[in-house]
This record gives sequence, structure tokens and C-alpha cells, in this order.
Amino acid sequence: MTDHIVSSFDTDLKELGRRVVEMGGQSERLVADSVQALVKRDAELAQKVIVLDGPVDLLQREIEEKAVLTIARRQPLAGDLREIVAAMRVANDLERIGDLAKNTAKRVLALTGEFHPQKLVRGVEHMSGIVLEQLKVVLDSYASRDAARALDVWQRDGEVDVLYTSLFRELLTYMMEDPRNISLCTHLLFCAKNIERIGDHATNIAETVHYLTTGQLLTEERPKQDTSSLTSVAFPA
Amino acid sequence: MTDHIVSSFDTDLKELGRRVVEMGGQSERLVADSVQALVKRDAELAQKVIVLDGPVDLLQREIEEKAVLTIARRQPLAGDLREIVAAMRVANDLERIGDLAKNTAKRVLALTGEFHPQKLVRGVEHMSGIVLEQLKVVLDSYASRDAARALDVWQRDGEVDVLYTSLFRELLTYMMEDPRNISLCTHLLFCAKNIERIGDHATNIAETVHYLTTGQLLTEERPKQDTSSLTSVAFPA
Repeated sequence: MTDHIVSSFDTDLKELGRRVVEMGGQSERLVADSVQALVKRDAELAQKVIVLDGPVDLLQREIEEKAVLTIARRQPLAGDLREIVAAMRVANDLERIGDLAKNTAKRVLALTGEFHPQKLVRGVEHMSGIVLEQLKVVLDSYASRDAARALDVWQRDGEVDVLYTSLFRELLTYMMEDPRNISLCTHLLFCAKNIERIGDHATNIAETVHYLTTGQLLTEERPKQDTSSLTSVAFPA
Repeated sequence: MTDHIVSSFDTDLKELGRRVVEMGGQSERLVADSVQALVKRDAELAQKVIVLDGPVDLLQREIEEKAVLTIARRQPLAGDLREIVAAMRVANDLERIGDLAKNTAKRVLALTGEFHPQKLVRGVEHMSGIVLEQLKVVLDSYASRDAARALDVWQRDGEVDVLYTSLFRELLTYMMEDPRNISLCTHLLFCAKNIERIGDHATNIAETVHYLTTGQLLTEERPKQDTSSLTSVAFPA
């Protein structure tokens, strides 16, 4: 029990933060489940992801609404304003993360019954593991207002990009080797892109947490290493 | 010359709207130029798109900042608050549209010197024409507060989805017919996806304009017709 008198403004701020954390947990779960569904070819789990993205979208709108009303009612000063804007931004990134997980889940349904060599999925699974870890850490850094952990996520974004670029090449090569791989690999390319973008959103969240806790913008361009959109694979002889 | 006394709050609102319209024009231009660069294989134009996405991102942050400060300072009532929230939402969609155009432009650079039969690009060009028209109309509807035009854009989103799904199938078929098409078609698939998502953002903007002008949410699920993530193409015998 605290014996502080908690103002109703503090209550508003706490409630806002609590909802963002809740939304973070839900989004994280959607990502993990969509990748599991892909790896295990589990159409039922994929369906669940598609359905459960709805509540995440709803939560984003609620957070935005509550944030705007709190700003309008309380006329917060700089520090508190930062808190509220951060909640809106993080919710925005989490909503997009949920959408990307849903897109992966839809592709799982498309692939039911397809020619599906397990080794083709392995690269996507590996990359997902790293992105999920990044997402977990950055959500923890938001909950605990830990600028150092946020910075760590931000600095590691390049790793995911390197992995994605090499995966892109690998999948293109499989397609060229055996045209039966084309349909699966195309969907896997989009899944890999979804996961890479989830990593980008985790990095955005890291920027927001850093700004929230320090008041400083991470202005230097983060070291972008995704060159897949610049990648072409020579046609093998 | 008007002889009304214009309050500084009105000035704030007008300035916010003006910046959103400006950002709309810039984003629209990025989309048009990225598609032109793709069709004409114009690396120089693609570079320009990549560079000019920066100012669009900056404008989004400025709009968000100005919106939040206006809410905090003026404590606006419902109608004005809607105006400000709409500006933030539209800016958010426009920022994403700019990013998608930039991604297409990067792919143009990847394709320099690739095997590049013109007919493969035609479907993407056609689809872009429709999406660009949707974007133009919805930005006009924002500038003129025209709920009916916004609703029209919202109702037509399904057309783009149908086109995208058929283009997805077509590109997969080209890949299966001739492996030399794989690299180009993969990038074209991502370009087509970018354009389909630009269409989605135009539809989001339509929802925002409708909400802004009528105070009503377009709650019924818009008729989603993109089934490409559910598409698989049988391996041709």
C-alpha cells in the first residue's frame, strides 16, 4: 500500500501505460503464434492469429482516444506530454506489428497442402527468433523505462537486416533450382519481409522509449543493412 | 480580405490542415514517380524518390508535434478535436505511403541491367494508375471536406484488391514459365504489394475524412477482396 495521494492525472497516465503494455503482450503473442503456425503448418493456430488481431486494432484506437482526451483535459507539461505521445506512438507500432503477424497467418492458410520442404522454412524461423527476442526486450524496456536496453535494441537492428538480405537470396535460389518451390518461396519471402518489418517497428519503439526516458532523440541514422530490395540473383547456368 | 476576426486557434487549425495537404501532394508525387521509375527503368528518378521521402517523414513528425501542442494549449471541444486527430491520422498514413514508394524506388535500382520483358511490368503499371487516382480523390476529399467522395474511395478499395490478386497469380505464372523471370517478378510482386498497401492507406484516409466531416465511423467491415495471401498456383504440368 502506498500512502501517496495519487492524482487522477497520474491515474490516467498509469492506465495509458498499462494498456500499452497489455497491447505489447498481445502483439508479441500474435507474432510468436504466426511463426509457429508457419513452421508447424498449423492452420487452426493461423486462424486464431487472424481473429485475435481484431482486439489489438481496437486497443490501439482506445489508447489513441484516451491519450487525446488526457491531453485535452489535463494540459500536461513537457514530461507528461512526452509520456502520452510515447503511448500513442508505441500503440501505433504495435498495431502494425499485429497486422504483419496476421498477414503471415493468412499465408499459412494459402500454403495448406503445398509442396513444403521443411528446410525452406528454417531461415524464416531463425530470423523470427531474433526479432521476437528484440520485441520482448524493447517491450520490457518500455515497461521499466530502461533507456539502455532500448538503445541496445536500436543498435542491433542491422543484424536482422543482414539476415533478411541473405534469406532473400537463399529463397530466390531455391526458386531457381526447382520451380515447384516457387509458390512456397514467394509466400516465405513475404513472411520474411513481414518479420523484418516487425524488427523495424521494434526499433521504432526503441527510439520512442529512448525519447521518453531521456528526452533525447536518437537522431543519427540507424545503420540500415537491409539491402534485399537492392538484391538480384544471377540466373544459375 | 475577410473582415472576420480570426482567432489564433483557427490559425493553428488551418495551418495544420495546410501542412497535411502539402504532405499529401508530396506523397502522391513520390508514388507517381516511383511507378514511372519502375516502368521506364529510370534509376535517376528512383534515386530522387528515395531522397525526397526524407522531407515527408519530417513533415509527419512536425504535424504530430503541432497537433499535440494545439490540443494541450487550446483544450479544443469535440469538433475541433476531431479536426486535429484527423490531421495526425492522415499524416500517419501519408508517411507510410511515402515509405512504400521509397521501397518501390529501391527495387528499381536492384533491377538495373536485369532481364526485363516490358509486358511483366504492365500489370503493375495498370494497378498503380487506379491506386493513384484513388489517392488523388481522397486527398481532394480531405482538402474540400467532401464526405461523399471519401465514401466513394472507401467503397472502391475492393477493385484494387481483386487486381492485385490476379496480378499475383500472373507474376507467379511467369516465374514458373521461365526461371529467368524469377528475380524481376519477385521484385514486381513486392512493388505490387506496395501499391496495394498504398490503396489500403488511401482507404484509411477515406475513413478519417468521413469521420472528420460527419462524426460517424465507417464501422461495417469494408469488403476486403485481396485474397492473394491465400493464393497458390499449381505447378504447371
